[in-house]
Amino acid sequence: MDLNTYLHEKKIVVENTLKDIALSFHNSPAPLRDAMEYMLFSNGKRIRPILAITTCEAMGKSCDDILPFACAIEMIHSYSLIHDDLPSIDNDDMRRGKPTCHKVFGEATALLAGDGLLTEAFRVMSDSRYTDRINPRIAKQLIFEISSAAGAMGMVGGQVMDVLSEGKEGTKDILHYIHTHKTTALLRASVRTGAIFGGAKVRELKKITKYGESIGLAFQIKDDLLDAEGEETKVGKRLKKDTAKQTYVKHYGPIASKIKLEQLVEEAVQSIQFLGENSTILSDIARFIGNRVA
Amino acid sequence: MDLNTYLHEKKIVVENTLKDIALSFHNSPAPLRDAMEYMLFSNGKRIRPILAITTCEAMGKSCDDILPFACAIEMIHSYSLIHDDLPSIDNDDMRRGKPTCHKVFGEATALLAGDGLLTEAFRVMSDSRYTDRINPRIAKQLIFEISSAAGAMGMVGGQVMDVLSEGKEGTKDILHYIHTHKTTALLRASVRTGAIFGGAKVRELKKITKYGESIGLAFQIKDDLLDAEGEETKVGKRLKKDTAKQTYVKHYGPIASKIKLEQLVEEAVQSIQFLGENSTILSDIARFIGNRVA
Repeated sequence: MDLNTYLHEKKIVVENTLKDIALSFHNSPAPLRDAMEYMLFSNGKRIRPILAITTCEAMGKSCDDILPFACAIEMIHSYSLIHDDLPSIDNDDMRRGKPTCHKVFGEATALLAGDGLLTEAFRVMSDSRYTDRINPRIAKQLIFEISSAAGAMGMVGGQVMDVLSEGKEGTKDILHYIHTHKTTALLRASVRTGAIFGGAKVRELKKITKYGESIGLAFQIKDDLLDAEGEETKVGKRLKKDTAKQTYVKHYGPIASKIKLEQLVEEAVQSIQFLGENSTILSDIARFIGNRVA
Repeated sequence: MDLNTYLHEKKIVVENTLKDIALSFHNSPAPLRDAMEYMLFSNGKRIRPILAITTCEAMGKSCDDILPFACAIEMIHSYSLIHDDLPSIDNDDMRRGKPTCHKVFGEATALLAGDGLLTEAFRVMSDSRYTDRINPRIAKQLIFEISSAAGAMGMVGGQVMDVLSEGKEGTKDILHYIHTHKTTALLRASVRTGAIFGGAKVRELKKITKYGESIGLAFQIKDDLLDAEGEETKVGKRLKKDTAKQTYVKHYGPIASKIKLEQLVEEAVQSIQFLGENSTILSDIARFIGNRVA
């Protein structure tokens, strides 16, 4: 199966589970529900949940039971996009080719829709309707893994540094902090979630973590390159906005960025060789991240 | 022991645990940490964690192991205050006699400090450093209880309705929805957390839930009365701002509000009579909520 077919099939599995989860929002006020669903179903690539599923399957385990956790990660990713786009943060009008959440629903509802998605992600992971077949000890470990990656020492920490360093000269250290926290933390947690669920031993988990860190950084460098060189109609959002931000292109230039990107993809591929032929799709995803145009 | 001494002692226990938890933020960027701690240590009454502890003790169990969950509830309460005060929601400058979080740290950092506190609350509840002595099945159940109360079908849902009905005529049904979700949901979850942890049987949990719902509604009606009739210097925030909001006083008038408040306190006290002499402090807390001046 080629990667595009694989990604498309898994995307459908993820979206069906997300639709099922969204049904459980029916008791919340309609404008809140609408805003949450607007962002959650806005044609995202679903790369994080797919990574969790693919890693789990690469460990030889069926992915059914991990779906609630994979989807919870996507809900957290969605909330972070809503809050990122708000006027007080990035003040963006377009995302994935559509008006941003606060442009459609207003700032207050968008802010609260983000809060709702974040909180509901933890409800889903602890809800016996979805997770009753999972050992509670593993469930608790995954909640820890994902909350640590998303919190003040992870994604939120990276986001704060990103905002506060905007328009300043910055340093390579600050850039590194932003990239390893804002984007990498949740991607790393996605593959770790799959690996932990798949029963990875300590050494295996270490290698899969390395894969997650490499593709996470590659993903962000590619984002920086797309911002500098991509086409707005393809990428689906306002570009060239990152001139005030700390980017890999700004600190290292476009040529060094492309070399680093290739290196990271290669490192990602190398670190999962222990999986043998089960590494194929994860390797393809690493290359896909390096080559994507949106 | 009189209630004030009891509340003071428990407040110290809660704050010591919160300080210990805050130490674990040391790896996050300093401005984020400062903003999170500014709100988390802004002289709150700690009524929610104390309710969890007191209910647990009333069930005959020691409260030590429940502290991380009690403190997680307080972290969620703190995040909700930061987001409530933001310009796009209530646009408040003062809270508990101090400038609000965004007035001190700016809107972006305040918004992200709220996201950080919410996410870290779930990290704390799933972190084996704090909760390794707790049965993971119970830990997962408490995470579900608290996330359900705080999410789109709970506190966030109530907050959305509160914001969207502002300046409109409103109905008693809308008022009821706001009051039972915005404030009551988390207070109800606080006592249920204590009861579940304390090993309450189904019938006992039902009665304690009734207590939580009664004090929750009483708490909000008292808030409405304080807003209409309290003194700003005592209450510590801008008052008379709720004229555009759906309040009990607006829909029922001050006299009926006071009668309802007394009824709710009495109902709360009645519903925990099954605890015998162990009900004393919970009864005193119900009366305290009805009589508070701030």
